[in-house]
Amino acid sequence: MKPSIPKGTRDFTPAEMAKRNYIFDTIKSVFRLYGFQQIETPAMENLSTLMGKYGEEGDKLLFKILNSGNFMDGVDAVQTQSIASLTKKISEKGLRYDLTVPFARFVVQHQNEISFPFKRFQIQPVWRADRPQKGRYREFFQCDADVVGSDSLLNEVELVQIIDEVYRRFGIDVIIKINNRKILSGISEIIGAEDKIVDITVAIDKLDKIGIENVTKELQEKGISAVQIAKLQPILELKGTNSEKLSQLKSVLTSSEIGMKGIEELETIFNFTQDLAIKNEMELDLTLARGLNYYTGAIFEVKAKNAEMGSISGGGRYDNLTGVFGLKGISGVGISFGADRIYDVLNQLNLYPADSLNHTQILFACFGDDEIRYALPWLKALREKGIIAEIYPEAGKMKKQLSYADNKHIPFVAVIGSNEMEANKVMLKNMNSGEQQLIDLQGLLNKFN
Amino acid sequence: MKPSIPKGTRDFTPAEMAKRNYIFDTIKSVFRLYGFQQIETPAMENLSTLMGKYGEEGDKLLFKILNSGNFMDGVDAVQTQSIASLTKKISEKGLRYDLTVPFARFVVQHQNEISFPFKRFQIQPVWRADRPQKGRYREFFQCDADVVGSDSLLNEVELVQIIDEVYRRFGIDVIIKINNRKILSGISEIIGAEDKIVDITVAIDKLDKIGIENVTKELQEKGISAVQIAKLQPILELKGTNSEKLSQLKSVLTSSEIGMKGIEELETIFNFTQDLAIKNEMELDLTLARGLNYYTGAIFEVKAKNAEMGSISGGGRYDNLTGVFGLKGISGVGISFGADRIYDVLNQLNLYPADSLNHTQILFACFGDDEIRYALPWLKALREKGIIAEIYPEAGKMKKQLSYADNKHIPFVAVIGSNEMEANKVMLKNMNSGEQQLIDLQGLLNKFN
Repeated sequence: MKPSIPKGTRDFTPAEMAKRNYIFDTIKSVFRLYGFQQIETPAMENLSTLMGKYGEEGDKLLFKILNSGNFMDGVDAVQTQSIASLTKKISEKGLRYDLTVPFARFVVQHQNEISFPFKRFQIQPVWRADRPQKGRYREFFQCDADVVGSDSLLNEVELVQIIDEVYRRFGIDVIIKINNRKILSGISEIIGAEDKIVDITVAIDKLDKIGIENVTKELQEKGISAVQIAKLQPILELKGTNSEKLSQLKSVLTSSEIGMKGIEELETIFNFTQDLAIKNEMELDLTLARGLNYYTGAIFEVKAKNAEMGSISGGGRYDNLTGVFGLKGISGVGISFGADRIYDVLNQLNLYPADSLNHTQILFACFGDDEIRYALPWLKALREKGIIAEIYPEAGKMKKQLSYADNKHIPFVAVIGSNEMEANKVMLKNMNSGEQQLIDLQGLLNKFN
Repeated sequence: MKPSIPKGTRDFTPAEMAKRNYIFDTIKSVFRLYGFQQIETPAMENLSTLMGKYGEEGDKLLFKILNSGNFMDGVDAVQTQSIASLTKKISEKGLRYDLTVPFARFVVQHQNEISFPFKRFQIQPVWRADRPQKGRYREFFQCDADVVGSDSLLNEVELVQIIDEVYRRFGIDVIIKINNRKILSGISEIIGAEDKIVDITVAIDKLDKIGIENVTKELQEKGISAVQIAKLQPILELKGTNSEKLSQLKSVLTSSEIGMKGIEELETIFNFTQDLAIKNEMELDLTLARGLNYYTGAIFEVKAKNAEMGSISGGGRYDNLTGVFGLKGISGVGISFGADRIYDVLNQLNLYPADSLNHTQILFACFGDDEIRYALPWLKALREKGIIAEIYPEAGKMKKQLSYADNKHIPFVAVIGSNEMEANKVMLKNMNSGEQQLIDLQGLLNKFN
């Protein structure tokens, strides 16, 4: 039997974990610096919490957990039942599909323990029974920060600062694209197709991928007239700086109250961030709609400038996140970092700092048991200084020990034989240069300072 | 609809997460210091990997995942099928039940990428469909470190050092109990009940809980004769220091090769650790068998000295971990930290360091939008120094802002009104003493140094 794991899932080896930890630790420190606090929710939620929250397609992609024990008890005449109703009887729990719905459930369930505005972050795996393909997994991590219970645009500003700081720390130059759903509403209002706003935003969202001609075709298919599409055209082709775009938009949207509100919100965010020396470029991008029918204000998306990769972060403001669980009137704004894509970008650009990889700094290689015993206090002294130190646990076979050091990318090996013991030293071998030197404990400790 | 989570699962609030992170971070740093590297495996494993590895009872406690899509396809005549065979048809995956079996599967699957001895740690949730009760959850975290591919007792020594260092960092005084399965084998050999070794160790393991009389009764029930039990008695009542116990044991076990091997192994471990100034007490405890039929050499268990709590860590040496997946002859030794119990002990003893709780250090409270704008560069300067700083995102309502600070245990609030702006200062309020002072940016930065 050759062991394997379910398709679409992954093992993470030490080398991969070190990189993933670097990513998550970096993001976490920035979240924390802004007062966001971590929560975790269970992998399993009641199906009543999950079902109906992700559309019909989403319901199908939920991993469902079989009830324990004799799950067929009370199920009669299986042949006459639909799969949906049978499933309901034999499964009551499902695996988390995203972090947003469990977060909404958490906020409602713990509303009396929470102080609003509530700034939480959450980094956990989610599971989707999607067809696995390159870059799409059935188990993957989401990494979200949200503020709920505050309408203030200051929250948007702080999320932009967080994005900017995270990518500054990674050394990835990004474009922070920003839009506002209210502007999209304004546009559909102006062209007289308010009822079609979802179709319009979904089509606009595809502009980058399928081009303006196909978007036009899609809009036509959705019943938007040629006249309306013509009105849309100049808006989609808006050019210039952000403030140029905003002033052009203002003249187009002047009669739309909601459109003007969207412009005002964007202006506020741009003004604040200008004061704050945001390092990365911010770009007003009207084509940014992020498919979701979900955002009500700001919409964010982040792209890496020097790597071939789709969006590596995204988010926005939403209303009424918790309404479906019975708590009305809670608005929120959030951002999600795409860990798998960031992982690939850091690889592409070779940006992992060497010291993020938690390598062992020194291996002790011994010729016999006396040597091992001699080495232990040295190891203790090194570790007390926080230096990651290992001893190869078996004596002898120097080649094996050196190859262990090689495989683990350990830069120094302290070789101990009887000569070294007599001299109260070790023979320190630099694994990169091959250079060797006899050194005493103090000398060794100094080497790592 | 009142939202809830499946029974036996938990949400972790920010306060709980901070404590849990403190626990895991502390343990991780010590693991890393000894060259252990982290891996992660998927939450879902193929049922073929999991089934039959935890006994019949364990198989029942696996959470099974329903196949996606029309899972009843090809299932005919449900009524005539046993639940077991029906389950097999509609479910192919299960949730991780522990970290050991997935680790064994990982080692076999990745054997060509791994350099042995392989020192890995793993901290992930596991799921068991056990009846939930106080302190027993259906989702809980395991926190394991193992070395596989080395027989050297040095590994045992390093695990003792790791245990000692972890609890030293927590400030929890512990007894590190140690035994050796080979000694237990030797004892059953000496009393002529070698075939009963499992019964004997299971019974011995209960000595603490049910007392010597009930253990005697249980042994009788298992068919161990009064004569044999009489031979066992003095061994169970062994007294004195570790070396006194060992020398008494030596005279009893002198004719048992395996028993003497066990004694020699323990002596080696005690000798090594004596050199290493282990801070916590180590105790040879022959009653330590840890139920498991699984250990072949050293057996460890850790108890907190000043708290009411069962074992908070445990582990030991096992042979042939990976044999069931086709890789023979790999021995290993490991230790598992009980995070939930450590959490409770740290609470009982009030040992969480204040600075482990990631509190925001200062909140900016503003009377208006101009004040908010005035505050942003201050926040930026503080955060650049690594100081966790927040601004209440809405202007006005000072009481609300102060109560937010109170709820989040934020020690300082910087109040900004027009007077403060004119003076280029903030009014810094110490939330514990109530003391207030006008302070400029440099003064504020210095305050947190």
